[in-house]
Amino acid sequence: MNAGKAKKRVIIVGGGFGGLRVARGLAGVDDVEITLLDRRNHHLFQPLLYQVAMAGLSPAEIAVPIRTVFSRQSNCRVILETATGIDFANKKLKTAGLGELDYDWLVLACGSRHSYFGHIEWEDYAPGLKSLEEATEIRRRVLTAFELAEKETDPAKQRRLLTFVVIGGGPTGVELAGALGEISRFTLSRDFRRIDPERARVILIEAGPRILPTFAEKLSDKATRDLEQLGVTVWTNSMVTNVTGDGVVLGGESVHAATVLWAAGVAPPELNRGLGVELDRQGRVIVEKDCSIPGHRDVFVIGDQAHIEEEPGKPLPGLAPVAIQQGKHIARNIQLELKGKAREPFHYVDKGQMATIGRRRAIAQFAGMEIAGFFAWLAWLLVHVYYLIGFKNRLQVMWEWTWSYLKFRRGARLIVNKEWHAPLPAPAKPAEPPPAVESRPPPPAQAHA
Amino acid sequence: MNAGKAKKRVIIVGGGFGGLRVARGLAGVDDVEITLLDRRNHHLFQPLLYQVAMAGLSPAEIAVPIRTVFSRQSNCRVILETATGIDFANKKLKTAGLGELDYDWLVLACGSRHSYFGHIEWEDYAPGLKSLEEATEIRRRVLTAFELAEKETDPAKQRRLLTFVVIGGGPTGVELAGALGEISRFTLSRDFRRIDPERARVILIEAGPRILPTFAEKLSDKATRDLEQLGVTVWTNSMVTNVTGDGVVLGGESVHAATVLWAAGVAPPELNRGLGVELDRQGRVIVEKDCSIPGHRDVFVIGDQAHIEEEPGKPLPGLAPVAIQQGKHIARNIQLELKGKAREPFHYVDKGQMATIGRRRAIAQFAGMEIAGFFAWLAWLLVHVYYLIGFKNRLQVMWEWTWSYLKFRRGARLIVNKEWHAPLPAPAKPAEPPPAVESRPPPPAQAHA
Repeated sequence: MNAGKAKKRVIIVGGGFGGLRVARGLAGVDDVEITLLDRRNHHLFQPLLYQVAMAGLSPAEIAVPIRTVFSRQSNCRVILETATGIDFANKKLKTAGLGELDYDWLVLACGSRHSYFGHIEWEDYAPGLKSLEEATEIRRRVLTAFELAEKETDPAKQRRLLTFVVIGGGPTGVELAGALGEISRFTLSRDFRRIDPERARVILIEAGPRILPTFAEKLSDKATRDLEQLGVTVWTNSMVTNVTGDGVVLGGESVHAATVLWAAGVAPPELNRGLGVELDRQGRVIVEKDCSIPGHRDVFVIGDQAHIEEEPGKPLPGLAPVAIQQGKHIARNIQLELKGKAREPFHYVDKGQMATIGRRRAIAQFAGMEIAGFFAWLAWLLVHVYYLIGFKNRLQVMWEWTWSYLKFRRGARLIVNKEWHAPLPAPAKPAEPPPAVESRPPPPAQAHA
Repeated sequence: MNAGKAKKRVIIVGGGFGGLRVARGLAGVDDVEITLLDRRNHHLFQPLLYQVAMAGLSPAEIAVPIRTVFSRQSNCRVILETATGIDFANKKLKTAGLGELDYDWLVLACGSRHSYFGHIEWEDYAPGLKSLEEATEIRRRVLTAFELAEKETDPAKQRRLLTFVVIGGGPTGVELAGALGEISRFTLSRDFRRIDPERARVILIEAGPRILPTFAEKLSDKATRDLEQLGVTVWTNSMVTNVTGDGVVLGGESVHAATVLWAAGVAPPELNRGLGVELDRQGRVIVEKDCSIPGHRDVFVIGDQAHIEEEPGKPLPGLAPVAIQQGKHIARNIQLELKGKAREPFHYVDKGQMATIGRRRAIAQFAGMEIAGFFAWLAWLLVHVYYLIGFKNRLQVMWEWTWSYLKFRRGARLIVNKEWHAPLPAPAKPAEPPPAVESRPPPPAQAHA
């Protein structure tokens, strides 16, 4: 139909919730040619990543190859690639491996990474939860701690192995701590012969006055009580001052813990710094009402990577629904422009928020309602299963959960990826970070990690 | 019942098919105290490991924590540990982490590892398929090759990326090659925009005169034709003389291939060399009719690790049914001895053998029958699903296969574990092998492999 006309090029960086929605929103639009770049080959359903870390689900149950999502959308090409910068003047995206790519519209939807508040050296001892690799690494550490505790005869060392610290009392921290509480209470007693479940401790550390601060205070309190029933100790107003191979330090106090998990902060991608545009204090790109960068109408930034305000001084939170709505909105605006019409400003429709605590409790807050307990958990379950992309995954996850619910088992309790015999958080610090793009030799046989 | 009497200690090294059957065969026997050691926390259903490598199944679908298998068997303790040697005189097993353990009966069931026929340097370029780590590494290499080919504009480089060589024409090699043939024929055309499926090549290299040499010649021929229909080129009488980062060399000829997989040979575990007992030419422990080591009546060796002859000069093959039957037999003999009765010699009941070629063809040979084609495949499927340990896994694998059968999709096409951006088989050789037991620092953030 437009055979004679050159197609407009839409480049999307990032195959997360936001980026995916932009591309899907342009399905069937013949006038555009979409290129979706991601550093990874899969879209990840991040809200369930903690389940992979806690051995409840397998990676393939919450991730889908981006390529598969678009196998029938002929105007979208998917490439495994990293964006390194933007040449705004010439409308080119710079990439690590493919050189420069021309765009008519560019969408940055790169998400966020962990922030260790300037203490990047803590990362070795306290991994965070953003990728499948990190989730399986956390799973390896947790399961290995139990295995080593089973062999340990020194009570002090065993206690350290059975102490799990989660830093950060947001939804991810609460979900991790709740699952750890359940694992050490229920899984332990059945499968291990020598571990005394009474010795297992799960400590959730929050710097602020209460956990889940974005929820109503009543719900925070409820969540705290639920966690305590699962054996989790909640420490609020507690600032972690150091994380070492031995555990965590809070001012004068220290906790010996073999496993420390980080859920305390996120930061925007490195890319933002090099753009030469205005960032907020956290480093997010400050965007206009239509999600575009001021002065660069054709470059949009969405999701966790962007700072957008609906009310002055109140940026939208880093939640999946924000990125999803922004993605859909941008696809609509591009179609409006293709028809020569004016863009519309973005408005966020608050869908509420939820967090789950263990296997059958949750808190939820939406449409002015606040609910907690089993029905909140059921709502949490339905919403999450519903939004899992791909019919097959949904059924499989349901099945997995039903099974684990009935049997109190965990389906994916495999230690893989590292030498199992490596002692937990090894104290040595790597000499330097690995090169981000250059070739690295594969590890030798035994370490086929 | 025997409260006053000291229990007899049975130590089993290895939680594979053989070791598991020994321990399960002693379930409910109050007079024994079983300790099962394994270097890994899971039992692996090895016959389906190639499906994990080929992105058809997830690791958790073919592996189960050994601990879970024995959660209700109170006389069995499971430890994550490595055996390093035996003090026969004092009846002690030496371990890497727990010192020496006393035994009354000891069963070695350590399986086998890859043999590169003296060319251990080939392993970096041509990984084999024994563990989950290796399976996910192979999956990573295969999927990454397709991803890089999609970006590649140089036809020669693209052709190298789309060339897959499998070395070794036994069942594993045939299964890998068949699956690779299907992937490049069917998956490619739908999900990739720029790859020309005609460029993809899968080459199966066998040193002997025919593939699947343990099967009847007619079935070998059938398998060869089936493989060719899937686009696999079969080279027999072809001896690989070198494997490099560029591909494989066969005498004067060389094949440029980004992905080379090793399925050509196995060797017994390192442990055997240090035992000071008689080994066969391959390094397997030569055992008596009751599977015990000559002169060491209380130490049994079973499965791939042992050399046992039913007819003179004809050792039993390294198949799961051999290990399973030996394991059950030893559990029976131990019970006989507990009752003061004499041991019985082991006799192998040949259950036949099968190999599958792609998604719906197989060859099978049992009870004097030779079958091939769809019904052989159905038999293969039923036997494998039936023997998968654990009810849940069985249903899930059935579901997974039904889905992939109907949709021609692959469920676990995730690239994880390594930096996705590392070019395929990096040419650099690691300076030295990693220490086997000592602590190693965890890799820094980006490399959470």
